[in-house]
Amino acid sequence: MAKRLVPLLNRILVEKIVPPSKTSSGILLPEKSSKLNSGKVVAVGAGARDRDGKLIPVTIKEGDIVLLPDYGGTEVKLGDKDYHLYRDEDILGTLHE
Amino acid sequence: MAKRLVPLLNRILVEKIVPPSKTSSGILLPEKSSKLNSGKVVAVGAGARDRDGKLIPVTIKEGDIVLLPDYGGTEVKLGDKDYHLYRDEDILGTLHE
Amino acid sequence: MAKRLVPLLNRILVEKIVPPSKTSSGILLPEKSSKLNSGKVVAVGAGARDRDGKLIPVTIKEGDIVLLPDYGGTEVKLGDKDYHLYRDEDILGTLHE
Amino acid sequence: MAKRLVPLLNRILVEKIVPPSKTSSGILLPEKSSKLNSGKVVAVGAGARDRDGKLIPVTIKEGDIVLLPDYGGTEVKLGDKDYHLYRDEDILGTLHE
Amino acid sequence: MAKRLVPLLNRILVEKIVPPSKTSSGILLPEKSSKLNSGKVVAVGAGARDRDGKLIPVTIKEGDIVLLPDYGGTEVKLGDKDYHLYRDEDILGTLHE
Amino acid sequence: MAKRLVPLLNRILVEKIVPPSKTSSGILLPEKSSKLNSGKVVAVGAGARDRDGKLIPVTIKEGDIVLLPDYGGTEVKLGDKDYHLYRDEDILGTLHE
Amino acid sequence: MAKRLVPLLNRILVEKIVPPSKTSSGILLPEKSSKLNSGKVVAVGAGARDRDGKLIPVTIKEGDIVLLPDYGGTEVKLGDKDYHLYRDEDILGTLHE
Repeated sequence: MAKRLVPLLNRILVEKIVPPSKTSSGILLPEKSSKLNSGKVVAVGAGARDRDGKLIPVTIKEGDIVLLPDYGGTEVKLGDKDYHLYRDEDILGTLHE
Repeated sequence: MAKRLVPLLNRILVEKIVPPSKTSSGILLPEKSSKLNSGKVVAVGAGARDRDGKLIPVTIKEGDIVLLPDYGGTEVKLGDKDYHLYRDEDILGTLHE
Repeated sequence: MAKRLVPLLNRILVEKIVPPSKTSSGILLPEKSSKLNSGKVVAVGAGARDRDGKLIPVTIKEGDIVLLPDYGGTEVKLGDKDYHLYRDEDILGTLHE
Repeated sequence: MAKRLVPLLNRILVEKIVPPSKTSSGILLPEKSSKLNSGKVVAVGAGARDRDGKLIPVTIKEGDIVLLPDYGGTEVKLGDKDYHLYRDEDILGTLHE
Repeated sequence: MAKRLVPLLNRILVEKIVPPSKTSSGILLPEKSSKLNSGKVVAVGAGARDRDGKLIPVTIKEGDIVLLPDYGGTEVKLGDKDYHLYRDEDILGTLHE
Repeated sequence: MAKRLVPLLNRILVEKIVPPSKTSSGILLPEKSSKLNSGKVVAVGAGARDRDGKLIPVTIKEGDIVLLPDYGGTEVKLGDKDYHLYRDEDILGTLHE
Repeated sequence: MAKRLVPLLNRILVEKIVPPSKTSSGILLPEKSSKLNSGKVVAVGAGARDRDGKLIPVTIKEGDIVLLPDYGGTEVKLGDKDYHLYRDEDILGTLHE
């Protein structure tokens, strides 16, 4: 039942990162530390087409941790997991440690 | 009475996949397993035209299983069956086992 | 009084097909068989112009049976008959037996 | 006081055709015969400019009998007569006997 | 205090023609003769720029008598006189005796 | 604390001209002489970019006296003074004595 | 937990400048001196793509002090600090002492 989704055009499939409400040593984190709306990119489309029909490749790669907009995105359930589809131009940025 | 429809421009004709409410061995499936709005592509247009009048071919092929948007699409009844027409840019992705 | 209309740009003139409510042998057809909104193309414009002023020819031909959108189209009465004008990009597809 | 108007860009000046309510032999015509909203083209602009500033000539000519849209057009009174200005792309088609 | 205005882009400066309410010999004119919304062009901009930054010259010249749209235009007071600024594409046509 | 602002793209920075309510010899001016919404250009951006990324230079120069639209513009306080930012395409014209 | 954000396309990340309510020698500043909505650019995207898919580089650089629009921008919390993301075309100008 677990299906694999290949996004079309410049869509990217994101698995949202749910911030831990406790640290690994068991300390409860205050609520505001969960504010960053981020996710891990699990699949990337081939890119949108420009006005001459040529592909504009997506600059985001599978595995990137991305900052997501507060609104938008389409929820998709694949197997047991919830994912979200976004257009690459709606992704705000990539996050790095 | 069963007519064949050749979609125009970048329209594609989709037969929606109705998820089984029982498995083949007769076990009732919980409702949330039916959530994926998908369909099988049965006909594909020749493509939209770019601003110079050239065809931009549709990347979706007949037989593809596609993830459909929750809204949009035009219902079409051909013979006894219900189909839906979508613009290729509105199809979210292709589904693979 | 019967006038001939030559549509301008990418407009096409369609005579709607009224589905028979009885078969030729006199059997009444159930209502849902009349659902397909189709028509016969009786005249086709020379095509829209692209951004450089060049003609983009209409891919629909006189005599085509077309699937019409549920909304839109301009009613035109020529002589005793009712016709509808559509832009070619609004025609959903062509129908074939 | 009768002025001549040279329309600008792709505007065309139309004198609407008021359908006779009686035939020449005096027979009253039923109302529905007056339904066609048509007019005679009395002046034509030099054409709109494309995105490079080049003229796109108007394909409608002075003297053409045209089918007019039900809405739109700007009323202009020149001397004693009422005319209407339309953009050429809004004219539905040309009418021929 | 009387300033000279050089319109920018494709703007043109128009002095509206107020139709006489009496003829020169003193006869009062009926109201409907004042219906034509026209003006004399007193200054013309260098033209709008196309998408490559090139100038598209204005086809209307200083001194032209123009037919104005019923709405739009920006009122400008220069010295004692009222003028109106319009974009050249909003001017309906030029008037000639 | 007085900062210098370099406007970006096709923005221009304008210091509005407040019309004197008295002449230099002390005569009070009637209210309608203050109607012209004008300003002096104090800084000009490098220009907007066309669709190929090339700069379209701004035709308005520092020191120009410009006619401003009645609406729009962004108020900016630099040091003690109030300025307004406009896009160059929104400036109606240049004023000359 | 402090993450680094690389903005995508023509987005820039700004740390807003909170005006001091006291001078360094302890004098309270009047409220209106805090009116300038400015910030320091801490990260810049690679640029938007034009219609042919080519990058249009962002003209704003890391370290620039910029004048921000009163509305818009997306709040982002990275570690303990609040930042704002803007599109480069929405930045009003750069500020210099």
